[in-house]
Amino acid sequence: MSTKKNLLVGQSGGPTAVINGSLYGVVSEGLKKTDEIGHVYGMVNGIEGFLNDNYMDMKSLEETNELELLRTTPGAFLGSCRYKLPEELDNEVYPTLFQKFEALDIGYFFYIGGNDSMDTVSKLSRYAEKVDSSIRFIGVPKTIDNDLVETDHTPGFGSAAKYVATTVREIATDASVYDNKKSVTIVEIMGRHAGWLTAASVLARKFEGDNPVLIYLPEVAFDQDAFVAKVEEALKTTPNLVVCISEGINDGKGTFICEFASEVGTDNFGHKMLTGSGKYLENLVKAKLGVKVRSIELNVCQRCSCSMLSSVDLNESINAGSYGVHAALAGETGKMITFIRHRSQPYELSYGTADVNIICNEEKPVPAEWIINEGSDISAAFVEYARPLTQGHVELPTKDGLPLFAYRK
Amino acid sequence: MSTKKNLLVGQSGGPTAVINGSLYGVVSEGLKKTDEIGHVYGMVNGIEGFLNDNYMDMKSLEETNELELLRTTPGAFLGSCRYKLPEELDNEVYPTLFQKFEALDIGYFFYIGGNDSMDTVSKLSRYAEKVDSSIRFIGVPKTIDNDLVETDHTPGFGSAAKYVATTVREIATDASVYDNKKSVTIVEIMGRHAGWLTAASVLARKFEGDNPVLIYLPEVAFDQDAFVAKVEEALKTTPNLVVCISEGINDGKGTFICEFASEVGTDNFGHKMLTGSGKYLENLVKAKLGVKVRSIELNVCQRCSCSMLSSVDLNESINAGSYGVHAALAGETGKMITFIRHRSQPYELSYGTADVNIICNEEKPVPAEWIINEGSDISAAFVEYARPLTQGHVELPTKDGLPLFAYRK
Repeated sequence: MSTKKNLLVGQSGGPTAVINGSLYGVVSEGLKKTDEIGHVYGMVNGIEGFLNDNYMDMKSLEETNELELLRTTPGAFLGSCRYKLPEELDNEVYPTLFQKFEALDIGYFFYIGGNDSMDTVSKLSRYAEKVDSSIRFIGVPKTIDNDLVETDHTPGFGSAAKYVATTVREIATDASVYDNKKSVTIVEIMGRHAGWLTAASVLARKFEGDNPVLIYLPEVAFDQDAFVAKVEEALKTTPNLVVCISEGINDGKGTFICEFASEVGTDNFGHKMLTGSGKYLENLVKAKLGVKVRSIELNVCQRCSCSMLSSVDLNESINAGSYGVHAALAGETGKMITFIRHRSQPYELSYGTADVNIICNEEKPVPAEWIINEGSDISAAFVEYARPLTQGHVELPTKDGLPLFAYRK
Repeated sequence: MSTKKNLLVGQSGGPTAVINGSLYGVVSEGLKKTDEIGHVYGMVNGIEGFLNDNYMDMKSLEETNELELLRTTPGAFLGSCRYKLPEELDNEVYPTLFQKFEALDIGYFFYIGGNDSMDTVSKLSRYAEKVDSSIRFIGVPKTIDNDLVETDHTPGFGSAAKYVATTVREIATDASVYDNKKSVTIVEIMGRHAGWLTAASVLARKFEGDNPVLIYLPEVAFDQDAFVAKVEEALKTTPNLVVCISEGINDGKGTFICEFASEVGTDNFGHKMLTGSGKYLENLVKAKLGVKVRSIELNVCQRCSCSMLSSVDLNESINAGSYGVHAALAGETGKMITFIRHRSQPYELSYGTADVNIICNEEKPVPAEWIINEGSDISAAFVEYARPLTQGHVELPTKDGLPLFAYRK
């Protein structure tokens, strides 16, 4: 019987363009540490799948090209879950899980994800302490929302920000072809509680005063009348106006703007029709100003497109994974890997760890001083913060003209 | 006074990712022909802008980097219009236009666009014949819809097809992360009357039976009950099902599927709510099968994203423009530039011209024999046709991590 312990890694929550980059970091570093680590296992569909004994040996990926392909494959290669562990550590699921860990001789546990995944790492590490288990639990951050505390930013944000900025620039170009007619294009961007990704749309501007002229985040209470007045004013100088809004814009009293659209009726099958904030504002502007308006919901490609990968983001995501392996081997547990920025120009970063118990219970909003013009614009300080994270092009492996992805056979 | 005539070029209709490639082809070739061509002018906002004396000297672009940037700039650099010339050639707009042509000493007129733009070229060339004008009128094709007759395919289709196939592959990857739960993702793709672009989603499949499992085009009557049965059957083998539909799917009797959703009620401002075909089918599947369903409308990036440019498409678009200049100088008028395919493997193409009067009055649907499985799938013959058009990566000029676009100052 070997004294080497095995490694177990899983992915959880919504996917990003680079969550598999972090998986690549953990797995490739784990496979390299042959003196200290035995097998490298992957949970299929996270902790929920693992509870059903659904896991795989990651060494098999080395035999094909799949491990290398992982780096640029969006989505979650291992599959994800939204399973939340019970609050009470005396729930029976904990001994069940730890028996399974023991059966597989797990010494190192990695969970790649956002807030909820860090909650899983927190609970498992606290249970381990309680039962005096020596398994080390490490969280590897991942979220396009960029809302985790204790870290300068999160893996996944840079590429999503680049996708949003590029796409908004393309949409603005498209919107301007009929510049002899007034029009408003409202772009709805992901982010329920934090506006980081929507703020990144400011990077799309080619010159001062360029589209998107107006940008609204959930951090500031949204006033519908003030919004219409801003749009009317902006149309005077920008006939083809582009406005970016977070899906989570709200009235500051707990009501999302999209909830104001609750009277829209039912669909053919008797279900209440749901409308996004963008659609609601489209109708509002149309009714109040009588101009041509369209709203565009950026779809799931915000989180899963690999066409606009930032090489800075991808490299940091991979490094977060491999740094995690080092931290675990050095004895750390109950920690999340963090990014520490030393300067923005030239950009300089190092890696660290922070207590996962703090991280899982907090959310980091965009700082109030970065939101300007009565909540309708983003400051230069944000641009300085975000721009380094979107740099660098990643060449994608392709086949027959399309990007080649790794997938579980 | 010079005996050289001047060149006038405009863009019309919806933009594509490569319509500026054709503009680059016309302008750069025109500027090279210094023995035969004087000035190269661009109409701003097409024929409508030109009627208001809105045009620019394109030589100014050579002085900056803008002419080279045009190649990879999406949208319509000169601006577009949807102006339709009157049917009656004795309308007063014709002499007005021709006086303006004469004042600018125009000898060569180029219009880059789809069906409606070819209608403009047809009318102007017929009027020229009537009044014995020597101005030569040439149409340069452009449409992501690929629905023009007399040409193997149209500039813009290849890049849009590549965008659709790549995005659907990414969406399928995203949809599969919770593969322990059944789900249906419906992707709505542009195309009111012709399903070429939706058919291109078949290229997203990584292996036989892969998503998108079901594909529906407007060329075949859409039966809602048969659709629900196909979805139910497909879910048995593909728990995370992706279905692609054209926005223009219809019942075969003139009613679009989205029109069946006419009972959804009014918005907060008393306007009738409009729902797309994807949203309608989302509600239908939810009601009939009770599974998790979401619908995604691919937004305007289908036609304006430069992130997935096909170099084959871009080169052909540029060549279509420069070939047009050669055709005009050789004396042709009332013609559209056409693509003639000699073989698919290896792909071989040459350029030609065809009577614009035939083209502007017809639409080319996807051949019936390429639509298989009771209208729910696309044949291998389509794949052989479409794949060569999506090949080759185009490196984009960038600045600060984002693509750099040309724009009118």
